[in-house]
Formats: sequence, structure tokens, C-alpha cells
Amino acid sequence: MQAIETDVYPSRVGGQPRRLERCDPILYGGVDDGPLSAQQLADYERDGFLILPNFLPPAQLDACLAELEKVRHDDALKQRDEAIVEPESNDLRSLFAVHRLSEMFASVAADPRIAPMAQQLLGSEVYIHQSRVNFKPGFRGQGFYWHSDFETWHVEDGLPRMRTVSCSILLTQNQTWNGPLLLAPGSHRRYISCAGSTPKNNFKNSLKKQEIGVPDDDSLTAMVDEGGIIPATGPAGTVVLFECNTMHGSASNISPLPRSNLFFVYNSIQNPLDDPYSGQPPRPEYIAARRHVEPIGSNPLTMPLE
Amino acid sequence: MQAIETDVYPSRVGGQPRRLERCDPILYGGVDDGPLSAQQLADYERDGFLILPNFLPPAQLDACLAELEKVRHDDALKQRDEAIVEPESNDLRSLFAVHRLSEMFASVAADPRIAPMAQQLLGSEVYIHQSRVNFKPGFRGQGFYWHSDFETWHVEDGLPRMRTVSCSILLTQNQTWNGPLLLAPGSHRRYISCAGSTPKNNFKNSLKKQEIGVPDDDSLTAMVDEGGIIPATGPAGTVVLFECNTMHGSASNISPLPRSNLFFVYNSIQNPLDDPYSGQPPRPEYIAARRHVEPIGSNPLTMPLE
Repeated sequence: MQAIETDVYPSRVGGQPRRLERCDPILYGGVDDGPLSAQQLADYERDGFLILPNFLPPAQLDACLAELEKVRHDDALKQRDEAIVEPESNDLRSLFAVHRLSEMFASVAADPRIAPMAQQLLGSEVYIHQSRVNFKPGFRGQGFYWHSDFETWHVEDGLPRMRTVSCSILLTQNQTWNGPLLLAPGSHRRYISCAGSTPKNNFKNSLKKQEIGVPDDDSLTAMVDEGGIIPATGPAGTVVLFECNTMHGSASNISPLPRSNLFFVYNSIQNPLDDPYSGQPPRPEYIAARRHVEPIGSNPLTMPLE
Repeated sequence: MQAIETDVYPSRVGGQPRRLERCDPILYGGVDDGPLSAQQLADYERDGFLILPNFLPPAQLDACLAELEKVRHDDALKQRDEAIVEPESNDLRSLFAVHRLSEMFASVAADPRIAPMAQQLLGSEVYIHQSRVNFKPGFRGQGFYWHSDFETWHVEDGLPRMRTVSCSILLTQNQTWNGPLLLAPGSHRRYISCAGSTPKNNFKNSLKKQEIGVPDDDSLTAMVDEGGIIPATGPAGTVVLFECNTMHGSASNISPLPRSNLFFVYNSIQNPLDDPYSGQPPRPEYIAARRHVEPIGSNPLTMPLE
């Protein structure tokens, strides 16, 4: 357990919550390394995210929406481990590893306008650490509490350092009032080390409701005092890039408008998974890629997970 | 039960949900009857609400906040029927009839800048049908589902017609992301007749979570298609006037910022309570004034409730 002894981002190790300084760069590439402008890179470095309204061309958005409907009503997919369904209605809430289950979504993950932004931000070739589609229903859509994805990926998956970026493609319109992603600007500059420890097989519950790895009230208050909160609003086709340690969450959605998004996590090939820092067995491959780490562009992405 | 047979606003009478036309005026007074301008009256008539940012002078806001803190920590008040407390923490969530429990809040209800707006909108003298303070905590503040107050007040309290206006005084800042009041513009022009029937002593649960008198998904979808949703945002001291049949709700609040407001419902003295249209016994006097209906300005408001 060498990794744990030298862990620069300890969390859930039984102590009090703490706000630690980030030990990693935020930007790994420069303006010559990809399509993002100097201003966009500076915004990302300052805030920890970038919102790109209307990024997807209408035809690509329509193709995504058609694929989304296909996936949502595919009963065979709902039987798979990758599918998270609502206990009461059996409606699909999330489907993981969509870049391996759908050729169409695989093509979006490797899109020549999208993947190069991740390569630029991370300054290297990238692979898909995790992907999924999320369905957040209207009327009675549940929220999701504040968290840093990096905290979970570090503790439960062994993601060593902060060199990872998430790309959320909004497939429905996101208003302030239908439960949009809420982002805390500047929160990526600190690491909130959480209290508690990680139960065995925590992911089976945490994918529905996260109760472990939850930041404490004082740290959240300090964070919002410093940077406020920005709702990631925009029309369908908007792309949100956010750094792996940017604190985010969402409130409930009582509006009639559902929210769906396509979510790709790009990790630098120079930041492959280690053993989980919790000391527990790794989560399944469809939640955190450990063996299927082909760089984007080098191979067709879709392949069986065995 | 003559009232029920001739009820123009039937609801919870066992049938299917329906959208009925409103049978009452929206505006009862004109521009010469009070402080609201012709434009403000037109906005209220069209949308069903008016948002007046920074309405309270700073000194009055400070006095309200001081009284709020006093009320929140008054253990004797928490023992009263008027107090709704969180089951787990025993924190005060709402306190009803605050204009009878607090001289300071009584003076706000009768404020010469506030009460005349209600008199103007309702075209008559007014009395307080209901009042309360609401505390909505940060981090884990629950939302409240869509409802028309008139629907509940009609069915459970016997409020005969739509000649009532609510005044919400925001005592903390309301952002789009800390669970603000969500209003559906234009929704006051139709009455959503709800399915189901009213259980006995429904108010004991409905004040915490409304499950009866809830509009159906199709009606809500039509409503939002027509008019959208507006979050009632603004700094502390903002006043929101909304018509008794305007559909409203709120999402959860995961932000660190709590929300508190002071809520006065003004009813026209020409629209006194009848027997509840549910056929059940009336709710308590502190939820719906039936005997204590002195017009604002005619007497000191604060008096014992027996």
C-alpha cells in the first residue's frame, strides 16, 4: 500500500475534513496545442470549467437525441450491469460505458471538435476513463449533492493526480429552474479531504445517492463565499468542460422539462489508474477504465468488455 | 352543503384532473386606488405576480432579521401549534400567525407601503387570511411541489372566490440556485381541478409535504409550454406579490445559503370564508382566519387567539 502512504490527496481516512492545496497544474497544454483560445484556457484555469453554448451542430444533436431514445427503450440494455434504473418505475436513469455500447456515442467521444479540447487541456493523448448518459426526469427529478469527482475517482478508483477533464454534452435545454449542473467557480484549486471511510461496494449505492465522500458544510460555505455558484445553463447541444476537482451538484427538478446529458471523462494517458487509495478492490471496468485505455483516435473505441 | 353543489372551482371531488377557466377578475382596483402604477397592475394581471426588488428599507429589513432570529430561538414558540419544526433537528421550519405572535411582524403586515398594494389589487379593505415565517435551510433544504394556494384554501378552508393576494417578503438573498420561489406566469388564468379527495386532518401532513391537491403532469406541462417558469430572485428586502391562484413551487436548496421569508396573505373583506368545500371541518384559525377578520388598519392586529 505504498500509494496510500505517499498520498497527496488523502480523503476518508478517518480524520476531520480539511481543505488542502491542489498539488497539480490545472492547464497542461497551451494555446498552440488545440482548438481552445487563450481566453478560453484562462477562463478554464480560473473557474475550473468552460460552458460552450450551442456547440453541437443541429444534425449531430438530432442524431444524439435519436440514439438517446433508442438506448432509453432498449430492454436488453436495462438488464446490463452498466444500467442504473429507477427502483420503482424501472426507467433508465444512467447507462455507463456508452462509448462501448453505442457506435454512435463512441463517435461523439472521439469527435474531432471535442476530443482535441481534452487533449489540449491535459497536454497529452487521452482515453475515456468513464462515460455515461444520464436521464433526469421532470416533475420529480432528484438532485445530486455537492462532490468533487476527483475525490471519488482517487479514493475508489486509484486515479493518482488531477489530470482529467469531464465533458458534459447537454441533450435537452438546461434552464436555471430544471435542475441544471451547479458549478462552484474556483473550487478546483483546493481539495476537500472528506471525513469518514469508504464502505465495501460503496458504488452500488453512491451512484444513486452519494453519502460518502461528501464535503463538509464549513468547506462548502468557504468555497461559495469565495467563488459563488454558476448554473450551467444553455440550449440543447451546449458543451460543458469541467476539471475533475471542480465541485458540482444539482438541485431537484420539479419542472416538466426533463434533462438528459452525455458524459465523457477524458484522462491523460500519463495518469493511468493505480490501486484505489481506499485500499479496497477496484470498481468495475465500466465505471473506471483500468484495462481499456486505448488513446482516443488510435483505435475504434467500441469493443466488447468481455 | 349548498356551497358544494354550486361550486365553480371543484377539486378533489373524485374525477379526472381538468383545467377550468377562471371565473373571477384578476384586478379589482385601478391605478387611482393605491401605490401600484398602471404598468405594475398590467404586469400583475398578465403574469399573476409582481417582483419588487429592494422594497424594504434597510432599517426595516434589519429589524425583520433581528425579529426572525428572536423567533427562531424562542423555545416557548416552538411548543405552540403554530410552529412547524423539523422532526429530526427540532429546528423551526415555519411559524404561522406571526402577525399575532409578534408585534414587530404585525407592524409589517399593516405597513403603509405594503397593505395598500393589497387593498388596490383586491379593490377593498383587506384582512390577514394567513401569515407565517418560513425557514428554508441551506445544504439540505427540501423543495415544495407545484400548487395553487387557492386550490387548498378553497377546498380545505372554504375561501369562496379568487380575491386574495400573497405577499412574500424575502429576508435573505434569493438566487436561482438556492431554491427560490418558482412562479408560472399566466397560470392564474386557469384553475387546475385536482384528482383525488381530501383526507381528514390533511393539513397535519400537507404543511410539510403536499401530496393532495397536486396538479397533474399534463396540466403542468401545458402551463409551462404556455408561460414558462420565472424564479423569484432578488436581494434580501425584495417583495413578491402573487395572486392566490398562481401556480408555484420550489426545488431543493443544496447551496450553503439559507432562505427565509415572511409571508402575509391578504384577503378581501368581501370574500370571507365559507364552509370548506371538502365538506370536512375547517382547519385551525392560525392557518385560515375565520373569526379574526378585522380589516387592516381598523384595529391593532395583535390580539390573543383565545
